[in-house]
Amino acid sequence: MENAKKFGWAGAAAGAAIFNIIKDKGPISRVEIVGQTGLSKSTVSQHVNKLIEMTLVSEELAQINGVGRRRRLLELNKNVGYVIGIDLDAKSLKIAICNMNAEIIDSDFVEISVSSAPEKILEKIEEMIDALLVRNTISIEELVSAGMGFPGPVEFSTGLPISPPIMPGWHQYPIRSKLENIYNCPVYVDNDVNMMALGEMHSGFGQDVDNFIFIKVGTGIGAGIIFDGQLYRGSQGCAGDIGHIAIDGDETLCPCGNKGCLEVVSAGPAIERKALAFADENKNSLLARIKEEKGTITPLDVGLLANNGDLVSQKIIRASGKAIGTVLAKVTNLYNPRVIVIGGEIARIGDMFLSSIKEKIYQRSLPLATRELKIRKSMINEEVGLIGAAITSINEVYSHDNVTRMVMNQEK
Amino acid sequence: MENAKKFGWAGAAAGAAIFNIIKDKGPISRVEIVGQTGLSKSTVSQHVNKLIEMTLVSEELAQINGVGRRRRLLELNKNVGYVIGIDLDAKSLKIAICNMNAEIIDSDFVEISVSSAPEKILEKIEEMIDALLVRNTISIEELVSAGMGFPGPVEFSTGLPISPPIMPGWHQYPIRSKLENIYNCPVYVDNDVNMMALGEMHSGFGQDVDNFIFIKVGTGIGAGIIFDGQLYRGSQGCAGDIGHIAIDGDETLCPCGNKGCLEVVSAGPAIERKALAFADENKNSLLARIKEEKGTITPLDVGLLANNGDLVSQKIIRASGKAIGTVLAKVTNLYNPRVIVIGGEIARIGDMFLSSIKEKIYQRSLPLATRELKIRKSMINEEVGLIGAAITSINEVYSHDNVTRMVMNQEK
Repeated sequence: MENAKKFGWAGAAAGAAIFNIIKDKGPISRVEIVGQTGLSKSTVSQHVNKLIEMTLVSEELAQINGVGRRRRLLELNKNVGYVIGIDLDAKSLKIAICNMNAEIIDSDFVEISVSSAPEKILEKIEEMIDALLVRNTISIEELVSAGMGFPGPVEFSTGLPISPPIMPGWHQYPIRSKLENIYNCPVYVDNDVNMMALGEMHSGFGQDVDNFIFIKVGTGIGAGIIFDGQLYRGSQGCAGDIGHIAIDGDETLCPCGNKGCLEVVSAGPAIERKALAFADENKNSLLARIKEEKGTITPLDVGLLANNGDLVSQKIIRASGKAIGTVLAKVTNLYNPRVIVIGGEIARIGDMFLSSIKEKIYQRSLPLATRELKIRKSMINEEVGLIGAAITSINEVYSHDNVTRMVMNQEK
Repeated sequence: MENAKKFGWAGAAAGAAIFNIIKDKGPISRVEIVGQTGLSKSTVSQHVNKLIEMTLVSEELAQINGVGRRRRLLELNKNVGYVIGIDLDAKSLKIAICNMNAEIIDSDFVEISVSSAPEKILEKIEEMIDALLVRNTISIEELVSAGMGFPGPVEFSTGLPISPPIMPGWHQYPIRSKLENIYNCPVYVDNDVNMMALGEMHSGFGQDVDNFIFIKVGTGIGAGIIFDGQLYRGSQGCAGDIGHIAIDGDETLCPCGNKGCLEVVSAGPAIERKALAFADENKNSLLARIKEEKGTITPLDVGLLANNGDLVSQKIIRASGKAIGTVLAKVTNLYNPRVIVIGGEIARIGDMFLSSIKEKIYQRSLPLATRELKIRKSMINEEVGLIGAAITSINEVYSHDNVTRMVMNQEK
């Protein structure tokens, strides 16, 4: 918004800029918009009236934060349509229907295997979306857009997955255009961790924070980087790939061909692998008993045992947390973020995991870099990928250029 | 500039925006400015005439890149005044007088010791600047601004050094206001590596590159980070402190209190330390002969021997390069830059050092992240700190807000 003030305002672009103020800062009064833009009262009124006529924003008598005199306030019309959020993970598929503020109206969840063919998963996505639409009596015509988080590298401009290491069949699979053809609305596909960072910025600890990092710890490990309030994708779109940063000296082989990658040392499968190995060697251990009962051991099992005092499980969890903290200490020295948010399936393990991460970050970063650093577990971990996918598509639909165009078309 | 186009233009702010186009993209014609701004020909002419009248820009008959028809082209008036660039290092002090395009007119250099009191160094700075002014018959009144690079953390907004580890006496020393009082012009102080990154962006391999990192390897190691064409300082202003990123498992004690920090493992003093230790144990070695001759061994001596085939020196240089490459591989995975530029005293050592860095980066980063990555030794290594200090102060003096104010004052 700062630039808008700097450069003055003109025509449809001013209408679009006013829309963005209402979207990001609403509920807000006309007078406050005058103050923020430096435009005249009549110019603001003219644009606001048009935005109301276009049903993009609404104006109602309301109190701010429930206190004070009731005033006429403007806010985003959340109910002008619906968006779909899709969060595909190595082991699960989540889908939500959201309003235009990325608030989840209804959602569904299914376990899947990442090794399934793309066509199979697309079929499943379609089936779930259709069920959600029927259940909420929403028609395809009411869908404004959709966003999809994908567990691997994606070229955002085209929405094409690029050589995803854990799902080779998806290389350049045109999931975006397939979904666009089915639902007749724009679809945006990005790496899931990028989506999560944007979700956390919209509804979690990333609100009003300029510089933060979202870390997803699950089957893999990745980071979404927010710089000055914008998602940073990097030159090749692969910024944030911390899963393959090395723990120097560790000799564990990673499928990528290198040794000691953070992911292979500390993500979900590493926790499982260590727990299973211990169970096999110590038939009387608690871990062995779980393996006997369930046929396998999940990272959450190990976390539960750790919380109940099992020393071996604690050691496994702490080793994983410390490896992640070792890498995040380096990230902190380089990037000096305000907040680090930890999410993903493994973040559910509990406080021992988080405190091991924190321990290493504080030990190995410069005091100045951690002076005001907050390290938090995402409080919206279960939905952050869905919210992020929805808000990404909303931000694209409501980009400055698009809204300028909408206002211009309205003027004709 | 993109935002300027988006939001339209008005009043003095438009004049300032046009100035910035001329400054960054000149030589440029009036017609091209019309094309880039969307403003009418007469509005552009009105603003351009005012900028010429203010002597901020000049217009002359010229060819673009020396080819084609001669046309009337606008460019920054480089000779409207002078700026001072100061580059303070652990071992040296460089000072330059530059024109308003940060081109060096004259410069001077002196060896100093970082342990000197700030007052002593300030005295030296004053002495050198005064000599340069006299030598070039420039009066204090012609100085527009000055920039100073400082080898430690600086709070940019105040220009105060913050707990510099290698120069404790400088903590909160008001070098900025002292210089401002002496030379009666605005002075800007920042960490030297930040200045170097901006210098490389202005005149080196960083030109027209949105995302790159400048690494200084000298007595310490630091990084200046350019994100989307802007210097990134981080939440606490300490982004880029890669000197204290750990080589995991290395037990070398660092003065910061941690073990295995990149700086203590691989910067200039580490190379010296290893060379001296070897010389002491092997009295017939080439390194021992140098020590006998000179009383000490510098990193450049080790580099010279390495280039001449001395295996021990090669081993020392390669170990240093590999440690730096190990950390830069992590940086590459996280940040996915387009270019990495290596500068600082140790970069002068030669190609073996650079190739060891490259080897590790290519070995340990994801192929996608290095597909279009360029790793270069700075070609303007000797002056990059001076150019950076000068251009930082020029950018501040010619900030959008400042130029808007100048144009407004002119209108009165």
